[in-house]
Amino acid sequence: MLDCIRIVLLETSHPGNIGSTARAMKTMGLKNLYLVAPQLFPHPKAQEMASSAGDILENAKVVSNLDEAIADCHLVIGTSTRTRTIPWPILSPRQLAEKIRDEHQDIKTAILFGREQSGLTNEELQRCHFHVQIPTNAEYSSLNLASAVQVIAYELQIASLSEIKNPTWDYPFATAKELDGFYQHLETVLIELKFLNPKAPRQLMTRLRRLFSRTQLDVMEINILRGILGAVQKIIPIQKK
Amino acid sequence: MLDCIRIVLLETSHPGNIGSTARAMKTMGLKNLYLVAPQLFPHPKAQEMASSAGDILENAKVVSNLDEAIADCHLVIGTSTRTRTIPWPILSPRQLAEKIRDEHQDIKTAILFGREQSGLTNEELQRCHFHVQIPTNAEYSSLNLASAVQVIAYELQIASLSEIKNPTWDYPFATAKELDGFYQHLETVLIELKFLNPKAPRQLMTRLRRLFSRTQLDVMEINILRGILGAVQKIIPIQKK
Repeated sequence: MLDCIRIVLLETSHPGNIGSTARAMKTMGLKNLYLVAPQLFPHPKAQEMASSAGDILENAKVVSNLDEAIADCHLVIGTSTRTRTIPWPILSPRQLAEKIRDEHQDIKTAILFGREQSGLTNEELQRCHFHVQIPTNAEYSSLNLASAVQVIAYELQIASLSEIKNPTWDYPFATAKELDGFYQHLETVLIELKFLNPKAPRQLMTRLRRLFSRTQLDVMEINILRGILGAVQKIIPIQKK
Repeated sequence: MLDCIRIVLLETSHPGNIGSTARAMKTMGLKNLYLVAPQLFPHPKAQEMASSAGDILENAKVVSNLDEAIADCHLVIGTSTRTRTIPWPILSPRQLAEKIRDEHQDIKTAILFGREQSGLTNEELQRCHFHVQIPTNAEYSSLNLASAVQVIAYELQIASLSEIKNPTWDYPFATAKELDGFYQHLETVLIELKFLNPKAPRQLMTRLRRLFSRTQLDVMEINILRGILGAVQKIIPIQKK
């Protein structure tokens, strides 16, 4: 279970936080670190704060955008402290860890941590299947980045200790890239149908993303849905002309 | 419950760790920080790492030895990664938090965190009722000091969310100071009885401390035990002469 999980840090400002994150991960048995456009990395301060977890830093994958970090992942989780205008399904760290253990133990999972000052953007959060919120003091909720990773990693480690091998699902779950292909296809068809006005899209695609995120589509289901979209597209031109 | 808990850091080397600890505490609703002989405090680095938890640092109590930090506490917990020659009752962070919530929610409780390099000494660990161990990667268990505080504080916060007021015990639990008085009295009597040879004490007192730590003595029980010790002392001189 732990080997399938990657921690993704987005546009981290302080290299010391990258090092502390590596240490937090290693103490809980996590190995895979992805850095999306870090401001300073590699950096001696990262090495210093990593202590004996330098191997996590050496093996960290530095990528230039979120897509590269999650394209092959079947489950994407965003950490968030704010409640959004369109509420997303939220898990506690413990619920997340137990969900991964019980339902997703062998699939590639990314857990996204945002910028030190501003967290994840709305757009990034809408790329996620679920959000995870660490319960905090209502008067002061500002966990340090590595501390947030420590808490989530701790719950993952605890859950992994009681891991029972599940029967595998009949089809693999869709990756983030496959899902994106589906959403683009869906959006195109909705525009062609004149159901979605690209000049005034409102929250339509966000609500559809949220709907399909919750259900965790497998590749067969993606194929069926895209088949339906294709069938719809075939009849649209006739109506248009 | 959270207001009755104090975090005690012993001989911390790096002031940054004191600041990070304050931040970790505040995010989880803990307020009371005791610093036993910190190497550098106050210090700008502590302020910097505390971020918006400077109030915890300002209110921190700096004391010169462990006794001053725990004298008025009824429950003392030591954090430990090593297994000792004489095994002590060990709780997981979750068990500890639930125990405090269910049995000790309104009594003064100290949770001790040792030095960055060497942790708590055996003597300090034997002053504790229980030890708490954070489950970690068997190959790398070295949590940063503030990360360890973060994990424990997180579990305390989660437990406090489901706190139900318990009926109070008929007598208050003994404080660390009252317990020490009892142990000294007991040791004196055992020496007078020639049951304990102070030149070759072996593990006798450690084993007795462990026994009484587990039971959590109240003040009435301490009075009874010391009454028995006093009665024994009255007959010893007669035998000696």
